[in-house]
Amino acid sequence: MINKAGREIPDEILERYGKEGFQGSFYRDQASYQKASPRVRSLMDPGRGKLVPSIREVLEKCNLRDGMVLSFHHHFRDGDYIVNMVMAQVAAMGVRDITICASSLGAAHDPVAGYIEEGIVTGIQSSGVRGKIGEAISYGKLKNPAIIRSHGGRVRAIEEGDVHIDIAFIGAPTSDEYGNARGIGGKSDCGVLSYSMVDAQYADQVVVITDCLVPFPNCPASISMVHVDYVCVVDAIGDPGRIVSNVVRMTRDVRELTMARYCTQVIALSPYFKDGFSFQTGGGGASLAVNTMLKSIMEEKQIRMSFAIGGITQPMCELLEAGLVEHIVDAQAFDLGAIESIRTNPRHHEISTSEYANPMNKGAFVNKLDFVILGALEVDVNFHVNVVTGSDGIVRGAPGGHPDTAAGSKCSIIVAPLIRGRIPTVCDKVVTVVTPGETVDIVVTDYGIAINPGRPDLIAAYRDSRLPLCTIEELRDMAYAIVGKPDEIRFKDRVVGIIESRDGTIMDVVREMEPYEAGYY
Amino acid sequence: MINKAGREIPDEILERYGKEGFQGSFYRDQASYQKASPRVRSLMDPGRGKLVPSIREVLEKCNLRDGMVLSFHHHFRDGDYIVNMVMAQVAAMGVRDITICASSLGAAHDPVAGYIEEGIVTGIQSSGVRGKIGEAISYGKLKNPAIIRSHGGRVRAIEEGDVHIDIAFIGAPTSDEYGNARGIGGKSDCGVLSYSMVDAQYADQVVVITDCLVPFPNCPASISMVHVDYVCVVDAIGDPGRIVSNVVRMTRDVRELTMARYCTQVIALSPYFKDGFSFQTGGGGASLAVNTMLKSIMEEKQIRMSFAIGGITQPMCELLEAGLVEHIVDAQAFDLGAIESIRTNPRHHEISTSEYANPMNKGAFVNKLDFVILGALEVDVNFHVNVVTGSDGIVRGAPGGHPDTAAGSKCSIIVAPLIRGRIPTVCDKVVTVVTPGETVDIVVTDYGIAINPGRPDLIAAYRDSRLPLCTIEELRDMAYAIVGKPDEIRFKDRVVGIIESRDGTIMDVVREMEPYEAGYY
Repeated sequence: MINKAGREIPDEILERYGKEGFQGSFYRDQASYQKASPRVRSLMDPGRGKLVPSIREVLEKCNLRDGMVLSFHHHFRDGDYIVNMVMAQVAAMGVRDITICASSLGAAHDPVAGYIEEGIVTGIQSSGVRGKIGEAISYGKLKNPAIIRSHGGRVRAIEEGDVHIDIAFIGAPTSDEYGNARGIGGKSDCGVLSYSMVDAQYADQVVVITDCLVPFPNCPASISMVHVDYVCVVDAIGDPGRIVSNVVRMTRDVRELTMARYCTQVIALSPYFKDGFSFQTGGGGASLAVNTMLKSIMEEKQIRMSFAIGGITQPMCELLEAGLVEHIVDAQAFDLGAIESIRTNPRHHEISTSEYANPMNKGAFVNKLDFVILGALEVDVNFHVNVVTGSDGIVRGAPGGHPDTAAGSKCSIIVAPLIRGRIPTVCDKVVTVVTPGETVDIVVTDYGIAINPGRPDLIAAYRDSRLPLCTIEELRDMAYAIVGKPDEIRFKDRVVGIIESRDGTIMDVVREMEPYEAGYY
Repeated sequence: MINKAGREIPDEILERYGKEGFQGSFYRDQASYQKASPRVRSLMDPGRGKLVPSIREVLEKCNLRDGMVLSFHHHFRDGDYIVNMVMAQVAAMGVRDITICASSLGAAHDPVAGYIEEGIVTGIQSSGVRGKIGEAISYGKLKNPAIIRSHGGRVRAIEEGDVHIDIAFIGAPTSDEYGNARGIGGKSDCGVLSYSMVDAQYADQVVVITDCLVPFPNCPASISMVHVDYVCVVDAIGDPGRIVSNVVRMTRDVRELTMARYCTQVIALSPYFKDGFSFQTGGGGASLAVNTMLKSIMEEKQIRMSFAIGGITQPMCELLEAGLVEHIVDAQAFDLGAIESIRTNPRHHEISTSEYANPMNKGAFVNKLDFVILGALEVDVNFHVNVVTGSDGIVRGAPGGHPDTAAGSKCSIIVAPLIRGRIPTVCDKVVTVVTPGETVDIVVTDYGIAINPGRPDLIAAYRDSRLPLCTIEELRDMAYAIVGKPDEIRFKDRVVGIIESRDGTIMDVVREMEPYEAGYY
């Protein structure tokens, strides 16, 4: 079938997973469903503890066996040791056919590509898939199609029972011996444990792995002991230097500063820029610059933000300290400044990823969002955005909260340079649709700004501005005029990845690449 | 069958509810079960709100119908307006056969007795049942047996699916229009919303009722918007003067002070009184006096408490402020001092009732408790405790956390005067077993102290003390010598109440009273 994003979804895939193709961003609004639930085991006897001396013994206690689904979180990003630590033991135990259900996977997890080759890992469900894992998927090494979900979509999939987690592994900067775990207080602080909260509630068995055991009770707990079966203390859960960056990069790139200026004007001139507005931005150079540029306008006009949300960086925490932001609600801390802020500022709150973005709960924070600033690998003339496949067709990105915030916010703004190297960002047709154009309102490039024709209210709002407005087709034409129209990527027929819409319908599929060299990793 | 507490449980009752009789306090340790889950409806459309102008319209939106289960919490205690407000509309709509599943019901809810008479309410599931509701139950007016559960047992029953809540009503001192609710910040502060957390997660539909609407987001939320369908703003959710007492009663009663002195010595001389011990006490005169007496011993011996738990009062908060308590974990605030403390002290934490005491989760706080001080209406020579039925056989009490903390703690101490008026507290056989004797360690009365023979370690610990130790039979004999042995209460055969053990097995039943007068209310 051709879905509402204009993508052909093979019927075989829809049947195999019992899914529909994407039908529109609010198609499942007010849909009713029975929530999934775990099979759990009680701990009544006060004499029994939860400490287990090694990962191996934890896996034995959990009765690890072929075909299980193991879950992980990515708050430690490129510094994560947990996935490799657990998977090495899984491999050593001779277990096969494992599905990894992670909130994201990155370059730190390259060893997983080897387990895919060996058939130890046969399923990947994740937001991000980068590095060698992405290559393994794109070259058809993974037995089952990888399922790519947004952060909100992952919570939905777990809560609706599309995926059932057998064992959740939660790396925790601190934990007590009963499993009360926090994102702060240890040697590998990550600030929050938001992605793991759904795993803790819906996995049959939950294992906390920490390198900093603290006295009971470790309060207030991000992950409560009532969900935790076992606690395992290891030497190190991550590399602190790679968990967060301790330097906030303030861009001097002329293109980034140009886009930041345009984006700041887009926000300041919009009907939603008023006292009590809400805002999400990312950690990129242009985004951070918007933060700084917005500050002086907010001060001048005496406009305060009701809440800032998302991945949080130090410049946003500075707005909180300055009294320009009422609350920060945080699902991921991107730098040391954000971690310090959530540790010390009572108006900086940890939230679950369900609260952040789950489209099928009774109302998430993204529904209350005025502005979101997002990136893109590609945007096409239908405003569809690709943040997953590279220009070579290989999986190397992550939807993250992109489709969630675009759908929820009143004004979603894509900020991206018109061309990257020899690659046009604005094009006829993105390789992969991740965020549907109907939820993308404005595209800001260094060459001009296009507003979605589906938002005549916004087009009217900027009519008299001095912003370099144009159509999305004009942006495409400019890009093609500079670097030419790229050749189409050649894929095989086989589906190796499924891009799931945040509501569980199928947005797009990723197909196997033609091998271009032997021994690609 | 005769259960392990020596009580005869009619087979008809066991079959009807698919239950076993009580088999011992840790019989279900490590039992595995599939958790229950609600049927929910998504809110994806950012344009739709949750505010509903009246309780009546909320009930209509929820499709209220005959036979539904409605849930309530009791943080507003004798000042609660919510139950009566909702039930008046239920009655006005002509709906019948409603089950009220409340964390507790008290004298504020006398109008419910009328709804029981009329068949509007045919089921009651609660911890406390007092006033006219208790009389209506005991005199056989309620169609189905009332089910009496401890606080931990209630969470267990909901999480195991023994009771499924159709609509949960959560009275909230503050809420935003999306249903983020908190126990503080309004005109009817109750400090915490711990009892409602399980209702929010397991009820199909969740309604927040508030008299103080605050700007979005109301953070940190006790009840998250992701669980809330509707928000209704009313003039008043309760009578602040009756929600909490603003005066902490410091006893001058000689008997209470005697018991407090004994109890303090019992604690101080026990093997568990060491740095890092944990503690729960109640709000009664003797309990509060223990708090005060313990303080000077802790200061003298440089012993600090790791955590205090339970219903919290100002004297405990003073220990926190004095640095003698590391953390307070709070499931109910008993006075204004406790509310002020949780509002201002970051080491005073709100917890869910599951975290507090649920026996079937993966480990609750009560499992980590060293000492608990508890009351009793009656204690018998088997150390069984009754806190539900009065000496006249009528239901007028509440297990609360009594069976939970007795089972979890290393040293459970019952403090009660040997006689009350003409009624002996220590007796041959309690009218109703609520907390089984195998979890009751020490009984402190104004006439002497009895240690459970099942705890030879404790008997040895106090052997050389100057405490007035005696056997439980000696306490009974003293009581009977003063006031005589009371006549047995005459019950009819019909079962009107079920005392559920915290693990869901049946501890005891309450039978219908012979009517002693016409028009008892």
